Amino acid sequence: MNNNDKMENIYLCDIPLDEAWGLLIETLEAVGLWQPLEAEEITLENALRRVTAEPVWARISSPHYYAAAMDGFALRAADTSGASDRKPITLQIDLKAIYVDTGDPIPKWADAVVPIENVEPIEEAEESAIRIRAPLAPWTHVRALGEDMVATELVVPSGHELRPVDLGAIAGSGHDKVRVWRQPRVAIIPTGTELVPIGSEVEPGETIEYNSLVLAAQIETWGGQATRYPSLPDDFERIRQTVSEAADSHDLVLINAGSSAGSEDYTAKVVESLGKLLVHGIAVRPGHPVVLGLVKRKPEVTHPAGAFVPVIGVPGYPVSTALTGEIFVEPLLARWLGRPPLEPQTIDATMTRKVHSSLGDDEYLRVTVGRVGQRMIAAPLTRGAGVITSLVRADGIVLIPAGVQGLQTGETVTVRLYRSLADVERTILVLGSHDLTIDLMAQFLSQRGSRLSSANLGSLGGLVALRRGEAHLAGSHLLDPESGEYNLSYIEKYLPDIPVVVVGYVTREQGLIVPSGNPKDLTNLADLERDDVTFVNRQQGAGTRILLDYYLGELGVDKEAVSGYEREEYTHLSVAAAIASGTVDCGLGIRAASDALKLDFIPLYDERFDLVIPHEHYESKKLAPLLELLHKQEFRDAVDGIAGYNTAPMGEIIAEID
Amino acid sequence: MNNNDKMENIYLCDIPLDEAWGLLIETLEAVGLWQPLEAEEITLENALRRVTAEPVWARISSPHYYAAAMDGFALRAADTSGASDRKPITLQIDLKAIYVDTGDPIPKWADAVVPIENVEPIEEAEESAIRIRAPLAPWTHVRALGEDMVATELVVPSGHELRPVDLGAIAGSGHDKVRVWRQPRVAIIPTGTELVPIGSEVEPGETIEYNSLVLAAQIETWGGQATRYPSLPDDFERIRQTVSEAADSHDLVLINAGSSAGSEDYTAKVVESLGKLLVHGIAVRPGHPVVLGLVKRKPEVTHPAGAFVPVIGVPGYPVSTALTGEIFVEPLLARWLGRPPLEPQTIDATMTRKVHSSLGDDEYLRVTVGRVGQRMIAAPLTRGAGVITSLVRADGIVLIPAGVQGLQTGETVTVRLYRSLADVERTILVLGSHDLTIDLMAQFLSQRGSRLSSANLGSLGGLVALRRGEAHLAGSHLLDPESGEYNLSYIEKYLPDIPVVVVGYVTREQGLIVPSGNPKDLTNLADLERDDVTFVNRQQGAGTRILLDYYLGELGVDKEAVSGYEREEYTHLSVAAAIASGTVDCGLGIRAASDALKLDFIPLYDERFDLVIPHEHYESKKLAPLLELLHKQEFRDAVDGIAGYNTAPMGEIIAEID
Repeated sequence: MNNNDKMENIYLCDIPLDEAWGLLIETLEAVGLWQPLEAEEITLENALRRVTAEPVWARISSPHYYAAAMDGFALRAADTSGASDRKPITLQIDLKAIYVDTGDPIPKWADAVVPIENVEPIEEAEESAIRIRAPLAPWTHVRALGEDMVATELVVPSGHELRPVDLGAIAGSGHDKVRVWRQPRVAIIPTGTELVPIGSEVEPGETIEYNSLVLAAQIETWGGQATRYPSLPDDFERIRQTVSEAADSHDLVLINAGSSAGSEDYTAKVVESLGKLLVHGIAVRPGHPVVLGLVKRKPEVTHPAGAFVPVIGVPGYPVSTALTGEIFVEPLLARWLGRPPLEPQTIDATMTRKVHSSLGDDEYLRVTVGRVGQRMIAAPLTRGAGVITSLVRADGIVLIPAGVQGLQTGETVTVRLYRSLADVERTILVLGSHDLTIDLMAQFLSQRGSRLSSANLGSLGGLVALRRGEAHLAGSHLLDPESGEYNLSYIEKYLPDIPVVVVGYVTREQGLIVPSGNPKDLTNLADLERDDVTFVNRQQGAGTRILLDYYLGELGVDKEAVSGYEREEYTHLSVAAAIASGTVDCGLGIRAASDALKLDFIPLYDERFDLVIPHEHYESKKLAPLLELLHKQEFRDAVDGIAGYNTAPMGEIIAEID
Repeated sequence: MNNNDKMENIYLCDIPLDEAWGLLIETLEAVGLWQPLEAEEITLENALRRVTAEPVWARISSPHYYAAAMDGFALRAADTSGASDRKPITLQIDLKAIYVDTGDPIPKWADAVVPIENVEPIEEAEESAIRIRAPLAPWTHVRALGEDMVATELVVPSGHELRPVDLGAIAGSGHDKVRVWRQPRVAIIPTGTELVPIGSEVEPGETIEYNSLVLAAQIETWGGQATRYPSLPDDFERIRQTVSEAADSHDLVLINAGSSAGSEDYTAKVVESLGKLLVHGIAVRPGHPVVLGLVKRKPEVTHPAGAFVPVIGVPGYPVSTALTGEIFVEPLLARWLGRPPLEPQTIDATMTRKVHSSLGDDEYLRVTVGRVGQRMIAAPLTRGAGVITSLVRADGIVLIPAGVQGLQTGETVTVRLYRSLADVERTILVLGSHDLTIDLMAQFLSQRGSRLSSANLGSLGGLVALRRGEAHLAGSHLLDPESGEYNLSYIEKYLPDIPVVVVGYVTREQGLIVPSGNPKDLTNLADLERDDVTFVNRQQGAGTRILLDYYLGELGVDKEAVSGYEREEYTHLSVAAAIASGTVDCGLGIRAASDALKLDFIPLYDERFDLVIPHEHYESKKLAPLLELLHKQEFRDAVDGIAGYNTAPMGEIIAEID
């Protein structure tokens, strides 16, 4: 290893997003690639979601003849003139009236159809006739030729994404094929020596390669055809060769990762060696190390789209990958498919928290969204580019443009939604303390047509969120040292003006989570003072942190003496994970988290975990399914089935505080 | 033909939609079919848009080790304590600092990573070291084990439709497969002796069978798998046999048409003969002759879903077919797929016209929607069940529930949108006179990112629509008999309080449209008095009707003497189509319509067709692309290329009227 190598070319130079797009478009225009790909003719059976390359004009009229609109008799309207109950008119069948089923052509001499239910049959001698007791206007119950479409009329315009009814209309206008723009073919090449296939057992330093799965699914969703290549090691020559091959048979090549400026980041160099590097680094977060370039197909290759192929170096963190897909790949595919780029639905919402953002970058902030009372609320999710679950959980994205330093609490922002507005409207927001059974509750509620979105702010954070009108309810397990009671004194302090109902939920076992076999032989919190014991703490405001501080005080243990007191995790499971990894000896948490990761548990306290619900929401239709759920035996059984939980208090009204 | 046969069983009995659904659900519940179909395990590669049958819990943590979040050196944060510019700290490489690339595991003894750009390399003798000028907090630039997901955590709930990022998260949590609900298999059996395949040359009485194409595309869109059967003649035994076979291998059988109560409507009888007829006739419009039933699979067939198969008799008019798909098939597929039924986005809009609706039926009214000024406007489209283009053109559906007699002009209605709100917001509404080049304008505008929606109300109707704030502009060609001028006097009369700009558009040739060869040897409007000549007229308020009345008056021709004066069509093309069909001898219309259907044309008058634009919209951003288009040579050339058009006045401001 040569350390000087590591330090040269320290960082790529980020250019603004607009500038990068401008450069890309200019370059693609110059080689005829900033336009739809070629048109092709396909059968209607295969045309769903394809985009028309030209207008479709009706080849025939529909109906293409004057047709009976009812089962009945075709006749001349003039022959019924003056018919009434008192003076019925009789028309001889086959002479003055012809039976027709719906859809049958009517004879040229006829101009109306009397429905079968409006005539009386007469059989006299050999003659059949019908009797009519009301006159008909001309063209009654006749479908006019061309009622739907007249030959030569426009059926669907060009640039139109075909829906089921469009296919029917095109078929009805006499076509069996339609000209559409060709689907773009996109190659996805994952690179990285650390990559292992989906489903592998992983060793430290290995990464499951799933970015290509996400990109391929995105491309399919957007109307392209994706080819996933097997992942390549960080080897300039092999990457170069694969990109060159892929370019020969695809319209776009995505190289995943290796787009930064590290020692093994070859994407930019590969693009340079095969064509022209346009951009290396774009001022967007997450996902700034994007590479844009244009490479040339081999001279012997003839391709309908010409000699050039754009290449995008897609950054490797999964959130960056997915967002680069949305920001660059989707609009490019839209252009090639002859349709406008997707415009997600937007809504205005109020930010719950202040967010700082780099002045130089466009930042794409993931948020959860929900309606609390009259207000639509947007709460920022974690901004880590490695946290794909933040995209799974996100209800939408807020763009913080370059030149803006961040967002203020209470600021109105525009959210580009990832879910339907209907989903957002029916979402119950649970903030506050983290508990494992909240996921279970979400699961049960989803089967009942409700949606539950939760975020962990700690018990105190939950009460503050309620005060600010940012949640429908909060989970809380705040021990009042003076009374030994849970939550009530905190509610009085933090929610003085908000009438709430405190509903019992569970009691949980809190204790020390330790590695399997308890190697340091810990028995209680007093052991945290030992020199050979390291601890992992929960964040400030968490009920478990307050519990810890209370009992450390009771035991006379100095926090300063607890090694790791300042190391904070945000959930019980994260505490357990830290212990499971061997980097720390113990943490305070619930039994369920310890059991989940097969660790040992030293039970210390039973605590009550309540649901704190503002009266306004307690009475609302939105929360009714949740409150009902607390009384359902199958839910109680499911929670009781998790180690360390007791549902005895579940559903009981503990207090109503005005 | 036995006429008594035709008249028995006169009509099916419509029951309310709720009741029909109630009966269907009850019946399906009884045989275990009102629930998701079986679960199946599939690879993530095939799981896009599938719905999870159970929650997915993380099998491994992600990251599954403590990882460097930057390229740099892993070290102990405590070793950097007190480092500053004046007092830099030097750490020996491989002893106190280890080079790591992003994603590499950090050693157990390390708890921070200093980015490569923040260190100075030192090479002294054989020793390599780095110099650091700022202290690091513990866990700086370290991705914690489980930062994204901790093993055992919920990744996605059950009942979740999988999106690209979900697939990534599931793969990242250690799975390569996922359990999803099986896709429903739906058989579509078209019946009707009159049916011919898509693309056939048609004779009168034949109908192109495209309903199965629409249903199959709908089913695919909603997550099912469709089988299209070849169409069957109206033959009870053959239909019965095909339904029985289809039931053995499908979860749902759709019989298209034959669901009414005519002599050749066998659907209800087939269902009865194979199982149980539940419903025959539902009080919905369009589409009331729906059949619901449950048939039994053959005893020797074992099917995972059991012995029973629901059958839906889908009415045959194309609009009825498509709406029956939305009303019955989609919610059933949703249930079987374990997801909530689709909830289209809704908006509130103001009805432009009064609509009567049958008190006994739920009516699904197709509407166009657009924003004019501050108001969202909904205009009813034709209600004919045979007009599939009305569904192509519809921006949404308004449900008029049973018990309501209709909608009032100005009433606020809820529209279930078929298009995105973004599409609706950018739509330019053109009402008024019908002109063939308006479609061309729509086509040009769609390439410029605008959307144009037009409806034909006649010239006078267009001015009235402008007065009522229902359109952005109107096409008009109203001849003022006194001045010989077009439009201006009408605008003064109909739009006294609305400042408008009158923009020139085209002049058009009006004349007599006659069959090819002009068999009746017509020369001018005086010939309309002849006994052997039949005429087809335009509707009241149409500019062409006003033109006709004016010149008939000039010629002293009595309207009463014109045979067919009362027969009204709504467009030039419909007039031409009536003549082409041979049912009528002539009509007054524009040359382009005559040419389109290869008819002969006797030119009589040149008329000016203007665009009347309220000043408010003339200045708006929305209309800018349209006004620019009038000056684009390629658009002018396209219009000039159509026979009978002259673009000399195009784009000229003819008058500004305050």
